[in-house]
Amino acid sequence: MQASPSTIVQAYDRLAAEGVIAPRQGSGFYVTGRALPPLALADATTPAARAIDPFWVSRQSLDSDPTVLKPGCGWLPTEWMPNAALRKAFRAVARRENVILSEYGSTRGAIRLRRFLTAQFAEEGLEISPDQVLLTGSGTQAVDLICRLLLRRGDTVLVDDPCYFNFQALLRAHEIRIIGVPYTATGPDIEAFERIVLHEKPHLYLTNSVLHNPTGAMVSPQTAFRLLNTASAAGLLIVEDDIFADFETIPSPRLAVMDGLDHVIRVGSFSKTLSASVRCGYISARKDLIDGLIDLQVATSFGGPSPVITEVISDVLEGGSYRKHMLEIQRHLEKSRKTVIHKLEMLGICPWVVPKGGFYLWGRLPDGQDSTQIALRSLDDKIIHAPGNVFSVSQSASSFMRFNVTQCMDEKIFHSLENILTGRR
Amino acid sequence: MQASPSTIVQAYDRLAAEGVIAPRQGSGFYVTGRALPPLALADATTPAARAIDPFWVSRQSLDSDPTVLKPGCGWLPTEWMPNAALRKAFRAVARRENVILSEYGSTRGAIRLRRFLTAQFAEEGLEISPDQVLLTGSGTQAVDLICRLLLRRGDTVLVDDPCYFNFQALLRAHEIRIIGVPYTATGPDIEAFERIVLHEKPHLYLTNSVLHNPTGAMVSPQTAFRLLNTASAAGLLIVEDDIFADFETIPSPRLAVMDGLDHVIRVGSFSKTLSASVRCGYISARKDLIDGLIDLQVATSFGGPSPVITEVISDVLEGGSYRKHMLEIQRHLEKSRKTVIHKLEMLGICPWVVPKGGFYLWGRLPDGQDSTQIALRSLDDKIIHAPGNVFSVSQSASSFMRFNVTQCMDEKIFHSLENILTGRR
Repeated sequence: MQASPSTIVQAYDRLAAEGVIAPRQGSGFYVTGRALPPLALADATTPAARAIDPFWVSRQSLDSDPTVLKPGCGWLPTEWMPNAALRKAFRAVARRENVILSEYGSTRGAIRLRRFLTAQFAEEGLEISPDQVLLTGSGTQAVDLICRLLLRRGDTVLVDDPCYFNFQALLRAHEIRIIGVPYTATGPDIEAFERIVLHEKPHLYLTNSVLHNPTGAMVSPQTAFRLLNTASAAGLLIVEDDIFADFETIPSPRLAVMDGLDHVIRVGSFSKTLSASVRCGYISARKDLIDGLIDLQVATSFGGPSPVITEVISDVLEGGSYRKHMLEIQRHLEKSRKTVIHKLEMLGICPWVVPKGGFYLWGRLPDGQDSTQIALRSLDDKIIHAPGNVFSVSQSASSFMRFNVTQCMDEKIFHSLENILTGRR
Repeated sequence: MQASPSTIVQAYDRLAAEGVIAPRQGSGFYVTGRALPPLALADATTPAARAIDPFWVSRQSLDSDPTVLKPGCGWLPTEWMPNAALRKAFRAVARRENVILSEYGSTRGAIRLRRFLTAQFAEEGLEISPDQVLLTGSGTQAVDLICRLLLRRGDTVLVDDPCYFNFQALLRAHEIRIIGVPYTATGPDIEAFERIVLHEKPHLYLTNSVLHNPTGAMVSPQTAFRLLNTASAAGLLIVEDDIFADFETIPSPRLAVMDGLDHVIRVGSFSKTLSASVRCGYISARKDLIDGLIDLQVATSFGGPSPVITEVISDVLEGGSYRKHMLEIQRHLEKSRKTVIHKLEMLGICPWVVPKGGFYLWGRLPDGQDSTQIALRSLDDKIIHAPGNVFSVSQSASSFMRFNVTQCMDEKIFHSLENILTGRR
């Protein structure tokens, strides 16, 4: 075959590693007769009969094939991500010391990244020590750890209505009683919030205060002030999930900053703006809470997040190109938001608010049409929508739908919506 | 300064990214007066007064500085790991498509790695579909997910006595009643096992059947057969944590294989033999269980494990050099085991069994000396030991200590032990 012996040796090694051939000592290699299962093997997909619930949206979006359109999903198209900086960071990791490549992370995760985060918090006016930052496997895992530390089955948690659908899935996994507070264009309805805190005595309030998911709205300073006062009077802890932070050019005031981490636990991640493949989240909180969270993370994950992951993130964040990348993303987003609002309005779909940042639009369908039905019908067009009620504890968002302006570039989405909305299909 | 403008621009960008300087539009860069917290900043260490419990060992080992010796820790020295193959895999990742670099993993994790695992299982005689493999963030997270799916607070779980200390920490996080079954050189004491299953009705039995942690012993075929019969008669599920699998040249029969995943859930990871920084674990189980586990993983982590992580693992496993690396490790281990046994015996410390593989030795101290006291005293010599009772539900292993033969290369360990054992210090 004109190939060099070392090429052949390598080919044999690979075939042996795959189990297609097996060595017999002193005799050579033999075909095992066992082939690998086919690569294109389809996984059992989410049952079609399954209820349209938060899991339905997550599983459909995460497992769909690349030809499926996902105008409601929760992430940027991959070509918007800082891939060049990521490639550079991976090449750099390949040259790092063995400890980075193959040892467990420390219980809190790499000091380098925690140090960077505390410097960033200091810019916002929140002065804490890197000891008060715990790195976790992801933002979701961060919220999960907090729930495990602070909640017991049957406890009550307050969320916004609507809220990020996976908050509900997560809280249900903890067998938590979920109460929704109606969300307004300036944050949770503060009268309702105060009433619920008084009567239902929730243990936690879980929210995105800035660039709220799914609406893209912001808590106003007045609402923030009253929220914090109510929480502190009632001894209620607030979990502020701030994963969209980097989508703001000038950071708006955060609950965590106003409160100085007294009653607020701040959660973040890099999945939305840096990479969802290089996953890592963080929690900043009071020291006593961090200490309990460390034990829990050790018990349930052993070491902190992978050193290779946190190094790649630090490299990208500290590399200098990240800020420019984010400025570009923000410009890009503004343009896409305008375009998509216009196209949706042509179909009679109106944004509930026009967000100041981020990629979400919370659109109201015309004539009280039902978004769950539209999501189901859109599957035939290979389009996965995010219908309103998966975000709503009270199931009162049937006429809403979450759109991700960056994932609405294909005209097919609007054609399909038009056909379905006008009853043509 | 003779530097090129682009170098200076990059320096400014980095300083801005670190928050040391800040740009003002149309005016230039200004020093913020905020310095990063010092890099060498010590984290609040584990309180000295803290009880010597499973968390003590984990936190001490994970967070100790590199000059501290860890003769009892649960991993290989970093220079034993396949670092060259890891470097090559990271360089390859840097050239991969954007989807790998920045998108979420699918709910089950990459098909490439699941396909490789099913081929490996098939070699052992366990024929399952890649659908029956769920990739997780780590082996520990795999066990945690299973506990979350199958257990409720107050349920009973059976573990070996002694067993891997973090099993206890994990089960306590679930507020589970833990019962220990005495471990013998041929697996759990089968009479005691049958009695406990009958009277205590445990919901799960969590074990390492091969290269048991901490003893290095193996379940005999007779014990395995009786274990499975008892479990199947009682409807008891067994979680077989098989993270040391790759330390065997010829795989011994696994419970999962004998049982065909009917009553056994198999858990594994790559942390012990490939990298603990590139973390990933897996669960293979019945399809109905996998489906419940997927929902739980979505709720608590959202996407499956990072695509970059699973690609690196696949590259190393399929690269062909991994098998040779493991053969070398096994030879290396055999030599180290002999040396360490000899050195320990000189101090009157006897191995409870001589393991057939892996890196653990379960050593009995002379004259009924107390290993917790020795561990505490060794801290002054900057040595962290793993005292017996952190592994023992019944607290009956005070005269034992777990040694990791690969982490006992420094003579200081034996000098220190000799001094402490003979009362010289």
